[in-house]
Amino acid sequence: MMLGPRSSMAFDSCYCLSWRVAVEANNAQAWRMVPARCVLYVENYMLAGQYNKDVDMVMEQISIYLNGMVAGDDGMDAWVLDIDDTCLSNLLYYEGKRFGGDPWDPSTFKSWAQRGLCPAIPAVLRLHKRLVNGGFKVFLLTGRDEEALGASTAKNLCAQGFVGYERLILRGPAYKGQSAVVFKSAMRKQLVEEGYRIRGNVGDQWSDLMGDCIGDRIFKIPNPMYFVP
Amino acid sequence: MMLGPRSSMAFDSCYCLSWRVAVEANNAQAWRMVPARCVLYVENYMLAGQYNKDVDMVMEQISIYLNGMVAGDDGMDAWVLDIDDTCLSNLLYYEGKRFGGDPWDPSTFKSWAQRGLCPAIPAVLRLHKRLVNGGFKVFLLTGRDEEALGASTAKNLCAQGFVGYERLILRGPAYKGQSAVVFKSAMRKQLVEEGYRIRGNVGDQWSDLMGDCIGDRIFKIPNPMYFVP
Repeated sequence: MMLGPRSSMAFDSCYCLSWRVAVEANNAQAWRMVPARCVLYVENYMLAGQYNKDVDMVMEQISIYLNGMVAGDDGMDAWVLDIDDTCLSNLLYYEGKRFGGDPWDPSTFKSWAQRGLCPAIPAVLRLHKRLVNGGFKVFLLTGRDEEALGASTAKNLCAQGFVGYERLILRGPAYKGQSAVVFKSAMRKQLVEEGYRIRGNVGDQWSDLMGDCIGDRIFKIPNPMYFVP
Repeated sequence: MMLGPRSSMAFDSCYCLSWRVAVEANNAQAWRMVPARCVLYVENYMLAGQYNKDVDMVMEQISIYLNGMVAGDDGMDAWVLDIDDTCLSNLLYYEGKRFGGDPWDPSTFKSWAQRGLCPAIPAVLRLHKRLVNGGFKVFLLTGRDEEALGASTAKNLCAQGFVGYERLILRGPAYKGQSAVVFKSAMRKQLVEEGYRIRGNVGDQWSDLMGDCIGDRIFKIPNPMYFVP
């Protein structure tokens, strides 16, 4: 039997779909780059519509969870949202990095983030509005460095319509070099100690959603382009 | 533009893939049946190869994790494996239940399980052998009722090649009516109190993998046919 390029592409699609599902279920961990055979698959996934549909599905599940949930009068019902590839999209940046096929490059990412031009992920922006309007306190919690990226991140969020959140929490000097799980756990613990009840926690990385005080319910936004430990 | 059945099928495939990924990432919870529009999709997923590929991918990730891991000389390094749709497949049963499109039916499931004819999931049987041969203590932990299904389950496992495990733990009378998370957490806690170190925990339901003493690493085997709280 002759197998042309289409067949071998089809074969790899099955493999790469398995890989992507393993990433989303947190079965695949600590991977440094998208596997070479899945670079085209991930590009297609991100651009051809399935990624957007998958994000919409997560929002549908959040909606089911939110329906009938009322924020308490004491103003202490909180949601935690990650920023990179949760509120704001880095897809334009990763287009230049073969959608994660190239290794992580902190200096070019810093330059990109400093420009403050990341577009909102529309479905997450709508969620943000619904939460703020519903009386929830929204905490935007990001591993981005406070000193280098605090100002550009705040500006970027505002320009994209993220207004009305309670607090933007970036990585301070005390947490430089710490893993996202350690840093984010400490920040969430502080919120809980302040009396906030974390009703929901949304991120594109499992490291946003593990550790201490993760909240009543966690939601994993898809991201097959990179892994943050 | 005319849209024939194939187009509408393609549209639903995108939706149902999003739904399936949401199930695997634990974004979709407490669903009672496969959505009607996804019944054919799930049938195709389970039978046409992608399910098997996805299981293989989980095994590949477990393999990466196991490589270089040596069971301690004290015989206290343990793995916990779920049974239904982890070690043993209920696919033949669910074929008669429209692959989860019909609601959960405890009495026909009990009859099915009592026959003791569930086939092994071959990739998980290979994992089981590797763990036993590698000196790990394997605990098979299932929500199946001890009194009704203990004997048939033990026989079924043996006939399918699951031999050499340390203990088969079924649901005793004290845990009747309790959720899987409560029952399985209590059982794992007991293992840890006995001194076992749970190095890995494998199940097809998130309720196998949440709660207390979940182990150093958890692995989610795909299952879009049913949800166990």
